[in-house]
Amino acid sequence: LKASILAIGSELLTPQRADTNALFLTRRLLEVGVAVALRQTVADDMQLLAAAFRHALATTDLVIATGGLGPTEDDLTREAAAAALGRGLTRDAAYLDALRERFARYGRVMAPVNEKQADLIDGAVLIKNPRGTAPAQSVESGGKLLVLLPGPPGEMEPLFDAQVLPLVRQRAQGAVLKTRVLRIASMGESEVEQLVAPIYKAFENPRTTILGGAGQVELHLVAEAADEAEADARIEALARPIREALAGRVYSEDGKDLAQVVAALLKERRLTIAVAESCTGGQLSARLTDVPGSSAYFERGVITYSNAAKADLLGVPGELIAEKGAVSEEVARVMAGAAMQSARAAIGVGITGIAGPDGGTPEKPVGLVYLALAGAAGDRVRRAHFPGDRDRVRQQAVQAALEMVRRGLLKLAPL
Amino acid sequence: LKASILAIGSELLTPQRADTNALFLTRRLLEVGVAVALRQTVADDMQLLAAAFRHALATTDLVIATGGLGPTEDDLTREAAAAALGRGLTRDAAYLDALRERFARYGRVMAPVNEKQADLIDGAVLIKNPRGTAPAQSVESGGKLLVLLPGPPGEMEPLFDAQVLPLVRQRAQGAVLKTRVLRIASMGESEVEQLVAPIYKAFENPRTTILGGAGQVELHLVAEAADEAEADARIEALARPIREALAGRVYSEDGKDLAQVVAALLKERRLTIAVAESCTGGQLSARLTDVPGSSAYFERGVITYSNAAKADLLGVPGELIAEKGAVSEEVARVMAGAAMQSARAAIGVGITGIAGPDGGTPEKPVGLVYLALAGAAGDRVRRAHFPGDRDRVRQQAVQAALEMVRRGLLKLAPL
Repeated sequence: LKASILAIGSELLTPQRADTNALFLTRRLLEVGVAVALRQTVADDMQLLAAAFRHALATTDLVIATGGLGPTEDDLTREAAAAALGRGLTRDAAYLDALRERFARYGRVMAPVNEKQADLIDGAVLIKNPRGTAPAQSVESGGKLLVLLPGPPGEMEPLFDAQVLPLVRQRAQGAVLKTRVLRIASMGESEVEQLVAPIYKAFENPRTTILGGAGQVELHLVAEAADEAEADARIEALARPIREALAGRVYSEDGKDLAQVVAALLKERRLTIAVAESCTGGQLSARLTDVPGSSAYFERGVITYSNAAKADLLGVPGELIAEKGAVSEEVARVMAGAAMQSARAAIGVGITGIAGPDGGTPEKPVGLVYLALAGAAGDRVRRAHFPGDRDRVRQQAVQAALEMVRRGLLKLAPL
Repeated sequence: LKASILAIGSELLTPQRADTNALFLTRRLLEVGVAVALRQTVADDMQLLAAAFRHALATTDLVIATGGLGPTEDDLTREAAAAALGRGLTRDAAYLDALRERFARYGRVMAPVNEKQADLIDGAVLIKNPRGTAPAQSVESGGKLLVLLPGPPGEMEPLFDAQVLPLVRQRAQGAVLKTRVLRIASMGESEVEQLVAPIYKAFENPRTTILGGAGQVELHLVAEAADEAEADARIEALARPIREALAGRVYSEDGKDLAQVVAALLKERRLTIAVAESCTGGQLSARLTDVPGSSAYFERGVITYSNAAKADLLGVPGELIAEKGAVSEEVARVMAGAAMQSARAAIGVGITGIAGPDGGTPEKPVGLVYLALAGAAGDRVRRAHFPGDRDRVRQQAVQAALEMVRRGLLKLAPL
C-alpha cells in the first residue's frame, strides 16, 4: 500500500511555513505499516490542484489531502478532487441544516459563503468534524481511497485518528502494527538514549524510535505481529526492561501528557493544588487547567511577577528578597508554602526563575529556575538550569514542576 | 512564471525530517519574483519519480529538483528526468576524466559506480559542483526550464545562488514579490470574507489569501512588481480599503501577534496590567508574559478557580455569586476592578466563563464567557459565546480579552 499526502494552501508555499500536518500524517501512517511515497504541497489554484489530485491518484493507492475545505473562494479542494475523479458535487441538505443550526446556536446568521462546506463529492462519505464547520470526506475510486481533511491541526489530527486510521488499517491488512509511546519528563534525549539503547538494540521487533522535545522525551515502540495480543506481548517484553532501566521516569504509556497524569493522581487521591508562579507566567496553571474537570483539584493560582505581588499575595518578606534575591531556593519555598496555606489546598507549588533573554547575571544566569513543593506530596525544592531560549526555559520549568508533583505523590526520590 | 520544487529521497519522507532545501529555494525564488506553486517530495522509485517530473513539467514553467544525483542505486534523478522529457542520457567524457582526476588527487581509485555521475540528459548543460562529485545540470524543453541540483545544502545552496539564480532572473524579468499579513482578532473567517471579498476581488495584483484560526483571521496580500517600492505601493492600495472596511479590526501588519501588540502599547504608554482569570486558567497571563521584557507592564495575575479564591484574592462577595452566578457580568466586573486595585496597576482584566465540556446549563451554556476591563483603558464588559471544544473556547476567550485591552487602549468602540 503506497500512500501520498497532499497539503493544500498557497500560505504553505512561503519560506516561513513548513507543513507540519504532513509530518503528523507520515508518523501515523507508518505506525500502521503504510509508507508515504509522495508528498505534494499545492497552491490554491484550480488547475494545479486538479492535476495534483490526478497525479496522486495515478501513482499511489491512498491519498490524504489536508486544507482548502473552508468557506472562502480560495477553498477549492472539493471542486478539484471532484474534477480529478470525474465526478460531480452535491450539496448535502442534512449537513447544511446542521451547519445553519450550529451558527444559530451561537446567535449568528450563517453567511451564504458557508453553504459550500456542505458540498460532497458524488459517492463520498461525509465525516463529521466536531471542532469546525468543514466536514471531512472519504471516497473510493478504482480501488483507491481518497480522503479530504480540514487543514487546522486541531481539527485534522483527532479526525484522522478517530475516523480515517481505521479505514487505512483495514486496507493495510494482514499484519498488525502497534505502537506504544513511553513518555519521560525532565531527562535529555541523549541521557535517555544512553540508558535504553543497549536494551532496544537487542530487539528487531518492536522497532524503537526516540524523539526529544522541551522537557520531554518519547520512546516509540512499534511491534509487528499477527494479532493485537501478540503485538502487545512483544511490546511489553521490551517495555519492561526499559521501564526498569529508567527507574520511575516513565510517566505515561497510554498517550496521557504529564499534566493529565498529575491531574489523574490528584483526583484519585482527592487532593487539591494551588500554584504560585513567577517566570512561567501562568503556564503551569494553564497546563493544570487544560484538563477537563480541573475544578475538582485546581484551587487557585497566583502569578507574582513583581516583588509587591510576592509580598501582597504570598507574604514573601521584602528582607528575604533583598537578602537572597527573588530567584532563590528560599523564595521558592515560601511561595509554595504560602500558595498552599492561603488556598487551604493539600499541595502548593512555587516557581521562580530567570526565563530571559534579559535579567541574567554570572551568579544567576538565564535558565536558572527554583522549583518548590509543599504539603501532602512532601516538601521538596530543586535548583535547575535549563538550556535554550525564553520559550524553552519556560516549557522545561513547567514540565519539571509537574514532574516534581508526580514524583512527590508517588513517593519517588527527588530529582 | 510558476515554479515547482521537487525534493528527491525516501529519507525525506519520514516523520522526523522536514525538507529544508525547499524553504531555501522558496525564499530565493520569491526574492526574484517567482512564486512556488507546487512542492513535491518523492521516494527513490523510478516510476514515481518519472511521474513526478512529468507532473511538474506539465503544470509549472520552472522545475528545480534536489537530490538523487549521487553514485548509489537509489540515485535515480537523472534517469527519471530523462524519461519524463523523452530524452536519452549520454556520458560526458570530459567530466568523467575530471571525476577520475578528482579521486586521484585524494589518492583514491574511482569505483565504477561513480561513473554514472557523468551522465548528462541530452541537450542539458552541465553545471560544475566545486563542493562534490555530482554535477548539477539544466535543460530547456518546450519553453520550460528544468534544473537538477545535488541534495546536500552545502553543495546545493552555493550552486543555486551562483549558477541557477541568474538563469531564473533572466526568465522572471526583474519582478519582485512581496507579502504583507493583516491580522484580525475576534472575527470569524466567513465574517471577514464577507466584508473584504468585494474589495480584494477587484485586485488582480496583489493576490489575497484568507486564513482562519481560533479567535484569529489572517489576510495574506502578495504583490508582484518591478521593485520593492512599487510592491509596497500596490499592497498599500489594497490594504487601505480593507483596513477601512474592517474599521479598526486589523491589529497587526508587521508579523506581531496580538499579545505583542498589546505589550507594545502598554510599554509605550508606561501602563501596568493585572489579570484575574477563571475559565482561561492562566492562559491570558501566559500570553502576556510570553513577550520578552514583560515585567515592565505585567504586574500580577490571579487564577481564581474556586469561589473561595474569588472571595479571598478579589473580594468577590459570596452573595453576588449566589445571586448572579460565578459566570456573570457582575462577577467579571468585580474581578477586573479588584485585580487592578489590589495590584495598584493601571489596568485590570477579568475573565469568567464555562470552557466545558461539563458545567453548561440551558441559560449558561458551554462557551459562554464574560470579559471585563477596568481602569486606564476604560471600563468595559463583554458577553461572548464561543463555539468549539474546551481548547478552542479558552483560546478564543484569551484572544477576545487581549483584543478588549487593545481596543480600550486605542479608544475603539467596544465589541
